[in-house]
Amino acid sequence: MNAEIVAIGSELLTPFRQDTNSLFLTQRLNELGVEVIFKTIVGDRPAHLLQAARVALSRAQIVIFSGGLGPTEDDLTRECVAEALGVELRRDHEMVTALYTRAAALRMRMAENNIKQADYIVGAELLKNPRGSAPGQWLDTTYDGLRKIVILLPGPPFEMEGMFNDHCCDRLKLVLPEVRLATCELKIAMVGESTADMRAAKIYKQFADVETTILAKAGEVQFHLTAHGATQEEAEEKIERVASLLEDEFADEMFSAGGESLEQIVGYFLQMRGATLAVAESCTGGLLAERITRVGGSSRYFMGGALVYSDALKREFCGVPPLLLASDGAVSRPVAAALAEGIRQRCKTTLGVGITGVAGPTGGTDHKPVGLVYIALADGKHTEVVERVFPGDRERIRWYASQLALDLLRRKLR
Amino acid sequence: MNAEIVAIGSELLTPFRQDTNSLFLTQRLNELGVEVIFKTIVGDRPAHLLQAARVALSRAQIVIFSGGLGPTEDDLTRECVAEALGVELRRDHEMVTALYTRAAALRMRMAENNIKQADYIVGAELLKNPRGSAPGQWLDTTYDGLRKIVILLPGPPFEMEGMFNDHCCDRLKLVLPEVRLATCELKIAMVGESTADMRAAKIYKQFADVETTILAKAGEVQFHLTAHGATQEEAEEKIERVASLLEDEFADEMFSAGGESLEQIVGYFLQMRGATLAVAESCTGGLLAERITRVGGSSRYFMGGALVYSDALKREFCGVPPLLLASDGAVSRPVAAALAEGIRQRCKTTLGVGITGVAGPTGGTDHKPVGLVYIALADGKHTEVVERVFPGDRERIRWYASQLALDLLRRKLR
Repeated sequence: MNAEIVAIGSELLTPFRQDTNSLFLTQRLNELGVEVIFKTIVGDRPAHLLQAARVALSRAQIVIFSGGLGPTEDDLTRECVAEALGVELRRDHEMVTALYTRAAALRMRMAENNIKQADYIVGAELLKNPRGSAPGQWLDTTYDGLRKIVILLPGPPFEMEGMFNDHCCDRLKLVLPEVRLATCELKIAMVGESTADMRAAKIYKQFADVETTILAKAGEVQFHLTAHGATQEEAEEKIERVASLLEDEFADEMFSAGGESLEQIVGYFLQMRGATLAVAESCTGGLLAERITRVGGSSRYFMGGALVYSDALKREFCGVPPLLLASDGAVSRPVAAALAEGIRQRCKTTLGVGITGVAGPTGGTDHKPVGLVYIALADGKHTEVVERVFPGDRERIRWYASQLALDLLRRKLR
Repeated sequence: MNAEIVAIGSELLTPFRQDTNSLFLTQRLNELGVEVIFKTIVGDRPAHLLQAARVALSRAQIVIFSGGLGPTEDDLTRECVAEALGVELRRDHEMVTALYTRAAALRMRMAENNIKQADYIVGAELLKNPRGSAPGQWLDTTYDGLRKIVILLPGPPFEMEGMFNDHCCDRLKLVLPEVRLATCELKIAMVGESTADMRAAKIYKQFADVETTILAKAGEVQFHLTAHGATQEEAEEKIERVASLLEDEFADEMFSAGGESLEQIVGYFLQMRGATLAVAESCTGGLLAERITRVGGSSRYFMGGALVYSDALKREFCGVPPLLLASDGAVSRPVAAALAEGIRQRCKTTLGVGITGVAGPTGGTDHKPVGLVYIALADGKHTEVVERVFPGDRERIRWYASQLALDLLRRKLR
């Protein structure tokens, strides 16, 4: 079966906001074997909403509306979908009581217009919303003689996701043919998108029964694999075939086959080895530490470190010799090495990372251009230093630097 | 006039990717006085694309298609829009030459299917694309007897934005009535969305001729004001009336009326006062420093600081007395104060900030729950400490803490 998702709300037609509910809904629908064939975004005007509802009902088998179920004058999804289907609205008296009870529990007097949230499209089941006030609706009906599943969900993502999980997944499973679907997410670090695609395409193009989506961000490429099968085992075998070939192809660069972030993987390796880490960051200004400490429980292996934006603090916190700063400059291979080993000793950790570079937009020279970064990793016996010139703006250069530092840690520890 | 934006590409119907071109296009169209009334997202299948094109042409005056103009078999926007309009495609021979020339310049042999990028819908002007290979198309035509402006743009944002700016804005201005439009963006910090809206609504509801959109993220609310006028002065006067009342209402909390970020404003104040800053971060793990150093040139006022995740480093880098850590615990008012003043002295800066807290998800107790954060600001004479319990998950708690630290700095320096 196929589906159309209609997101309702005039704010979704401004330059400032975007429908994100459809990403969640698409994922869930895909898991149930349903393909999303159209997405429509429409404002609060009844004529437009009615038009969007009619178009969606005429071209998709499942139509999911999100938004416009609240109590205000602008909330007209119930009214317009009922009109598109050519049926009436009725008031559910149990729901009226529930609305009064909810208001009373919140010590509020219920506003008159709240009551319309108890209106249902004739033939629909109301879906409870413990996370908000507006109930959703489920309708198994016909339009132009064809069977249609029509679902009305609230707009706030928290309410919408809960309601879909609680009330819609099971109902859809009863309606849909059983699906045997397997998915897998592989992530690689520090390989360009086009290189990654070229190397991966040789593999995934041989397997037409596995769908491969490639997603790239700075310093990371993700392969999302999906396959169907007559049995769950068959679907998983199909995935496994492609995944294991991709794992061989990207043996060194692949860091996760289970959705983990690079900082999670590094944290996992550090714990596994009983190792501790400290960092000294110049151009990344705390980004590396911020990423490492996104992981809950990172205090078990991350001790801290120093933000050494000024040369004075490179000396003070990491003991970088003043002569080295004077002879080689703050952005140099030996200073990166001194930062890494200096912070390691100072913080008494197993490993130390030092980063120094030119993040831009100013401060670049012919000799040391914007994007030049040195990253050092010290273990007390040996200090490894990598030199790179990253492309892009300040934000991108800093991100690449933190990504490469994490990847050096991963390679060291695995 | 009104518009519909149709984004084309099967990847936009997966859970992994989203149409973002429409945000840019909506902003530009709004500036030209055009309202976006529908957005549609459709995949590469010709039947669906044709259907979407027909629906859009029937309900909007300006229809902008983005994507599907490349050389592959999946790129069918030209073909489907021509069919929807009931006209043919013709090949532009100058463009064929240009495609061959481009391939030659890149030392590539041109693939046969590249040639279809030179096809234009009869009646359309081709729009040059110096940023890629696929040209766009502009068509001033009729559909069902009504005038329609139809624009075909490439999908990659960089190519699409350049082409719209270079070729479409001026053409649209010739077609559209002249617009006198003024906009303004006001930002406030550390006020909840519903409180901000309640206080702002008293003001903006009195002015029906100014459109106010409210956007909230953790610790920040933005008011986007838009007004039209017969003259530019009139539009600006309308905005000014609402903006100045909002500025009075949120005198203390408003930090920007020109789009600047909170970290930019803090940097601006630090420079203006000739002051320098150092930070000591525990639970935020570098986030505050990372935000401060997002601003280019921040090395003029930000010296650095310490990441003091472990208690040992709180002593080592900031001189926090061991007895204080033992008696009050690392997450406490006096430790925050000691971090701020300690890092200030150590880094020899005008101001020092110290942050300590429980970011979660674990580590909370009845006495010190997840979300409890102490933020201290020291100037050498006085140390101010703020205690807050922030809601939400680890990411949100850390963001709130960094936001409040920046806001304390702003209030101190302004």
